[in-house]
Amino acid sequence: MASVNHTSEQEAELSEPIKFLSKVEANAMEKELFEDYRFGQQQLIEIYGHSCAMAMAKVYPLSSLHKKQPTVLVICGPEQNGAIGLVCARHLRIFEYEPTIFYPKRSCNPLYLDITIQCEKMDIPFLSYLPTEVQLINDAYNIIVDAMLGLSDKIELKEPFSGILTTLKQVKIPMISVDVPSGWDAENGTTDGINPEVLISLAAPKKCATHFSGKFHLLAGRNLPYDLQKKYELNLPDYPGNDCVVQL
Amino acid sequence: MASVNHTSEQEAELSEPIKFLSKVEANAMEKELFEDYRFGQQQLIEIYGHSCAMAMAKVYPLSSLHKKQPTVLVICGPEQNGAIGLVCARHLRIFEYEPTIFYPKRSCNPLYLDITIQCEKMDIPFLSYLPTEVQLINDAYNIIVDAMLGLSDKIELKEPFSGILTTLKQVKIPMISVDVPSGWDAENGTTDGINPEVLISLAAPKKCATHFSGKFHLLAGRNLPYDLQKKYELNLPDYPGNDCVVQL
Repeated sequence: MASVNHTSEQEAELSEPIKFLSKVEANAMEKELFEDYRFGQQQLIEIYGHSCAMAMAKVYPLSSLHKKQPTVLVICGPEQNGAIGLVCARHLRIFEYEPTIFYPKRSCNPLYLDITIQCEKMDIPFLSYLPTEVQLINDAYNIIVDAMLGLSDKIELKEPFSGILTTLKQVKIPMISVDVPSGWDAENGTTDGINPEVLISLAAPKKCATHFSGKFHLLAGRNLPYDLQKKYELNLPDYPGNDCVVQL
Repeated sequence: MASVNHTSEQEAELSEPIKFLSKVEANAMEKELFEDYRFGQQQLIEIYGHSCAMAMAKVYPLSSLHKKQPTVLVICGPEQNGAIGLVCARHLRIFEYEPTIFYPKRSCNPLYLDITIQCEKMDIPFLSYLPTEVQLINDAYNIIVDAMLGLSDKIELKEPFSGILTTLKQVKIPMISVDVPSGWDAENGTTDGINPEVLISLAAPKKCATHFSGKFHLLAGRNLPYDLQKKYELNLPDYPGNDCVVQL
């Protein structure tokens, strides 16, 4: 990256360890981003969904995939994490992957409906159910993107999500979780949950990421104003060049 | 770029020359993007603004700038082209350039107001007037981004824009125009207008781009659904890898 004019104060900050946000901090920061910095939900979902696709493409470029077709299964929940998954799928299609979406509980939020239609009009197939026979999933897809539950605590872990998690715990293909792996507590992680190979933290990592034991932990988004980074003492690493993804 | 599965029909299409859109076609395509493909204005402005910043950073990386500070002057008009300029400025700030915004006729569209506040909260300075002494501009900035008028035909070329154009015709530093250089006719270009060094066409080039005689013509955005590309017979080139910018 080209050199920049860090003050010594900034340099001191950058050498501090990166902050892992509690749920309260993450929600407060997002509230400020919406209310004070006036980001729009549509705007943030687009930024995060695009950067998730960039992150996936960085870890698993088309040339690295073993199956004949560059298939990816994107599992989307009913809230913001799922909407980010939908945008991610659209960008993956543009990057010439072949995403398939499983979106079992569709939101009636008009914003999410628009994003869904964008995917349908891009001819991205939607699954009507997830096979319970895990081997079918292993055979059909190269990668699974878990954009199911995320940071939301509004979704109790009941059907269809508990059944989907049971299936996901058994799949053998690599899984990428968006922000918070589904079924994990946003702070305490899990003792008996899914074990993604990749975790993509959005804007800043959440506390549960300290329990992540997969191969690649990426930070994606790069949209946080410097003042907000300072206020929450995030000590984010420098992103390389103009990338929207950095490995932690 | 990783190889993809082009059908022979697609390959034939790709070898056709790229289409330069008439104003009617460009407006019709954008209308479809909004109404049928259900893209949101906030979403499109974010995509285009980000890709303009990526395009500028590609042509003028930080390391290439001659002045001590990586200053850029972004001139924003009252309509969508200006809003894209505001988002571009925000991303330039994140990429560690030092943008300054001149936004003489602020829109009262709440969406553009939000984007303006995002820039203000990022501590990007706004000029209250443009110096008429051209040397001051040449000395203060490395580059000018012209996001003033674009494709809009709602803005008659009167003050303050006619005066700004008179100034811009005299500046010696490189200028980047977004989609349609200000003061140009979207189809017929200009015989006595500004002469940008770089033209960034958004989504697809407009007819006026055939009159562009600067150094770099870039296509940015990469958000058009394949069906729409086919319908308008765009014959867009392949973007390299996962980039959102390609040189034409």
